[in-house]
Amino acid sequence: MKNTIITISRQYGSAGRGIGHKVAEKLGIECYDSQIIQKIAEESGFDAEYVRQNSEGTAEPGFFASLTGMDLFTYSNRDTIWILQSKIINELAEKGPCVIVGRCADYILRDKYDLLRVFIYADDKDRIRRITEEYHEADAHPEKHLVANDKRRATYYDLYTDQKFGDYHYYDLCLSSSVLGLDLCADMIVQAYDKVTKE
Amino acid sequence: MKNTIITISRQYGSAGRGIGHKVAEKLGIECYDSQIIQKIAEESGFDAEYVRQNSEGTAEPGFFASLTGMDLFTYSNRDTIWILQSKIINELAEKGPCVIVGRCADYILRDKYDLLRVFIYADDKDRIRRITEEYHEADAHPEKHLVANDKRRATYYDLYTDQKFGDYHYYDLCLSSSVLGLDLCADMIVQAYDKVTKE
Repeated sequence: MKNTIITISRQYGSAGRGIGHKVAEKLGIECYDSQIIQKIAEESGFDAEYVRQNSEGTAEPGFFASLTGMDLFTYSNRDTIWILQSKIINELAEKGPCVIVGRCADYILRDKYDLLRVFIYADDKDRIRRITEEYHEADAHPEKHLVANDKRRATYYDLYTDQKFGDYHYYDLCLSSSVLGLDLCADMIVQAYDKVTKE
Repeated sequence: MKNTIITISRQYGSAGRGIGHKVAEKLGIECYDSQIIQKIAEESGFDAEYVRQNSEGTAEPGFFASLTGMDLFTYSNRDTIWILQSKIINELAEKGPCVIVGRCADYILRDKYDLLRVFIYADDKDRIRRITEEYHEADAHPEKHLVANDKRRATYYDLYTDQKFGDYHYYDLCLSSSVLGLDLCADMIVQAYDKVTKE
């Protein structure tokens, strides 16, 4: 078996994380997600929540940033987190076949490993329901929360990679969890993995 | 069984047509592709090859168009073809579940039928091999032929629809035929079709 890594990029609220864990369970391999944040926190000394907010463009811009349009106070910390994130993702991939959810793993590993690059997306209605009822992350205006998060994630990708978030050129399959459901998405990824690892 | 239509949009040279026929065969339903061109030709009086070149942005701009930057002589014919194409695609969809390859069928049918909207793409290397060896459509510069065709198809979509060609928001699944192969692409589409028609 080749050391093929499944990377799952996903729209916020699309259940990409849940699908990633289902895939890993079916294949009997590890799925890395929040462990990466924890490892970055341990190695950097930053608080885990601070890492989470600054490792995928999740953070709201600070007060000064909102005045100047620049993220003056967190920029260098984000860079530190990006470097650690890259190092940790490379170390995890080296251990063997696995699923890595988010964190630009597809970009970080692109020249070193065989990848199956997945993108998961969903209808806004489903995403709003999920971030409200399951993640409990939305405030009084979940629609605005969603749009703001999408923008920040896309901007983060623009800043740290030369890929465009959600552009099919950078993925091997892109699946709507709203239409296909979580189980069929996971089944399809397993089928794709079997296909690419048997060649 | 609901009257669900499978629409396959595809990058030029990605084998979307071949995948569409495989899907139709597996499901025991019709696959419409070049029949649509033939029907437009019959109803309009235009030559079938002329219809083909003007029904999806395949045509090279003419001599005057290249001088002025406007497609002066074919614009109204293209409009006629678009109107006939819309009418014929609606008539075909009305007959029952089917696969329709290309021709903006996803856009034309979007408010009238349940759709499974597929996008097929492939690596440039595979597309160049296919348009050269299988379609025999490329000239001495297949790379340029590919780029020009991609641009024209995207421009055609911009002109006649309010969708963006290849943007995941407009599809339910997007599959790389280079990575997955034609058979697995077809299998996945059948699985997705079974999923959406059973709900």
